[in-house]
Amino acid sequence: MMIDQTSMTLKNELHDLIEWLSMFGKTKNGGVTRLLYDAAWQKAQYGLKQKMEDMDLETRFDDAGNLFGRVSGRGEDKKVILTGSHVDTVVDGGKYDGAYGVLASTMAASRLFHLYGPPKQTIEAVSLCEEEGSRFPLSFWGSGTITGKYKMESAAGLLDRSGISLAEAMQSAGFGKGNYPQPVRQDIACFLETHIEQGRTLELEQKTWAPVSAIVGQRRYTISLTGESNHAGTTPMNRRHDAVFAASLMIAHAIQEASHQSNGLVATAGRVEADPNVPNVISGKCRFSLDVRHHELKVMDHFCEQALAFFKETADNLGIRIHVSKWMDAAPVKLDPRLTQMNLKIADHAGIPFRKMISGAGHDSQIFGTYCPTALMFVPSHLGISHSPSEYTRLADLEVGVRMLMKVLYQLAY
Amino acid sequence: MMIDQTSMTLKNELHDLIEWLSMFGKTKNGGVTRLLYDAAWQKAQYGLKQKMEDMDLETRFDDAGNLFGRVSGRGEDKKVILTGSHVDTVVDGGKYDGAYGVLASTMAASRLFHLYGPPKQTIEAVSLCEEEGSRFPLSFWGSGTITGKYKMESAAGLLDRSGISLAEAMQSAGFGKGNYPQPVRQDIACFLETHIEQGRTLELEQKTWAPVSAIVGQRRYTISLTGESNHAGTTPMNRRHDAVFAASLMIAHAIQEASHQSNGLVATAGRVEADPNVPNVISGKCRFSLDVRHHELKVMDHFCEQALAFFKETADNLGIRIHVSKWMDAAPVKLDPRLTQMNLKIADHAGIPFRKMISGAGHDSQIFGTYCPTALMFVPSHLGISHSPSEYTRLADLEVGVRMLMKVLYQLAY
Repeated sequence: MMIDQTSMTLKNELHDLIEWLSMFGKTKNGGVTRLLYDAAWQKAQYGLKQKMEDMDLETRFDDAGNLFGRVSGRGEDKKVILTGSHVDTVVDGGKYDGAYGVLASTMAASRLFHLYGPPKQTIEAVSLCEEEGSRFPLSFWGSGTITGKYKMESAAGLLDRSGISLAEAMQSAGFGKGNYPQPVRQDIACFLETHIEQGRTLELEQKTWAPVSAIVGQRRYTISLTGESNHAGTTPMNRRHDAVFAASLMIAHAIQEASHQSNGLVATAGRVEADPNVPNVISGKCRFSLDVRHHELKVMDHFCEQALAFFKETADNLGIRIHVSKWMDAAPVKLDPRLTQMNLKIADHAGIPFRKMISGAGHDSQIFGTYCPTALMFVPSHLGISHSPSEYTRLADLEVGVRMLMKVLYQLAY
Repeated sequence: MMIDQTSMTLKNELHDLIEWLSMFGKTKNGGVTRLLYDAAWQKAQYGLKQKMEDMDLETRFDDAGNLFGRVSGRGEDKKVILTGSHVDTVVDGGKYDGAYGVLASTMAASRLFHLYGPPKQTIEAVSLCEEEGSRFPLSFWGSGTITGKYKMESAAGLLDRSGISLAEAMQSAGFGKGNYPQPVRQDIACFLETHIEQGRTLELEQKTWAPVSAIVGQRRYTISLTGESNHAGTTPMNRRHDAVFAASLMIAHAIQEASHQSNGLVATAGRVEADPNVPNVISGKCRFSLDVRHHELKVMDHFCEQALAFFKETADNLGIRIHVSKWMDAAPVKLDPRLTQMNLKIADHAGIPFRKMISGAGHDSQIFGTYCPTALMFVPSHLGISHSPSEYTRLADLEVGVRMLMKVLYQLAY
């Protein structure tokens, strides 16, 4: 009876917190839009501060607007176990991406404190100000300012779509004026992030939890092809410079190669556009995107080199000019093997269905991962849907995530 | 001296007539927009009537707005040698497509009459009211009404983009009210059309004239693919239903097959559209067009069957739904072999650089070709450009076209 009641209480609290947080920036589609420093973001972040205090955490902001809820340690080691995720969303995103990790961390820290009193080592739950890159042309502003990847000064030059600079937006939300400590920190022992998977692997394999051993690197290219627009009836096949045909050969080759590798590498040509794009004219122009991800740099290097060499050869053979623009290049990040190992062991002891995973999506953990020992832990995403109002994770799975985070924090801090 | 002067005169007259006709519907880009029954069309067609009369042809309209300029024959045979092309244009088209054939026919008939008097057999130059299909959802309204392919009654149900019916448009231009003879005719001995090539074959081979032995058939398809939109990072390659990948395999296969045939078959995927069409999402939907042309039905049948079978197999393999819509299917048309042979012989005698050709574009001749002996003759198109303000044919080549048409008409009618 007692155990059931506790379980119900955690579930209820978690459910209520998720619904509560999702009200800040609620869209008419039932999604959430909470962009860095906007009104919904401010309400959410100041609301979370109050909530953390209600849950007996000591709160503070830093000057970038990252929010911390602290359970001070009683031991010698003054370094902090930091755990959390981001509070911002994409436009019309879901209730779980980021938000769940913030709430899971807050609940875990608070509950541990209530159950076991002050830990040996300080635990801080964190609501990072920004990860998604939905408002300004950068992402990871929260983890970036804490780890020193971003300087506060760089905020002046970055504009959103309405021409407001990051610095202006920050100041209008009450930050960036020196009223709070500078965000950069040297006292972080490790970072722990709980997040929804945003893929379907756990659900399909009926697992409820996954320590993540690495986050893939990502490269994104735009390939622009210029051939010759011509009459579809009067231009013989051997006199064509058909940009759509060239793009098709390239996309077919790259995706086929990626499929054959079966080493976890993924390649996607999500966008393709032809010009003039009418049925009875050979399209003289075509451009497409290529997104390539893997958790090992050399695998990614090899794949991209081969693919680009094929693209150039194909373009040459067809008398087509090719321009390749690489507009994103993020290195893969290995998460801390010791923490991953520890987490696998804890899951095994807990008797839950789990597996080790690679993350195909980007997370704050990839910024912390190059700065301090970092662990990332997934709970399932129903149908793998994310960045959508339809994003959903069963409450029972969300609960597992909180309970597992409590076990991990307990092992590290107590 | 005398020959040169005649030559200059024909050239000058031709130049002036082409410039004059291009003023009706002149666009700010230097192109021509003259849509069926619109104000520019009316001015052009009524202007041509006056011009034909000035050139001593007996004119009349039919009730569809086709304009005839007659040189009556003095022989027993009351059947008519009809020669001409269409007066309408695409939106922002060139000065030569259609217009040149109308003017070449008018000049040839008039000049023959002035040089040699009345022929044995009646010659009629014709300015056909419509070929391009730019205003109403049909094409070949001119040749179609003459040959009985279209009934005048069908004009009631066809609407242009502003909701005006073909019947209303026709009446507002002064036709379709029974004021003129019905367009359908039983007295046509043969049809001769002079046209610009709209391709680059003659120019590249330095030929100035080409009897056309066949007009290709055309099929146009839209292939719609429905897979599954998904996260580009978190969806393993073997769990994807990537519509852009499927489309690429299909397009690459079809175009490659067409290239390997080297039998003159052409295949074009001019249009391709993905959804949601963003770089970091697997596109769940993709559709593309396929345009296939050849002058032999069985070659086209075989190619299309093979291609569609490959499309279906590929879709099945990738777990993608495929919908194929065939929205155009025009059979190939053989032009009259006797006339083609005669024209080749005349060109040989004339000592001009010529070749026999297949037309990859559609023409009024394909409507007449199934109705009466028909000959189509091409002059070069500079760079193969057509349906554009940049459409251009050298005056010297245009002159050859008129002189050759005169020779052909002389042989047939005198």
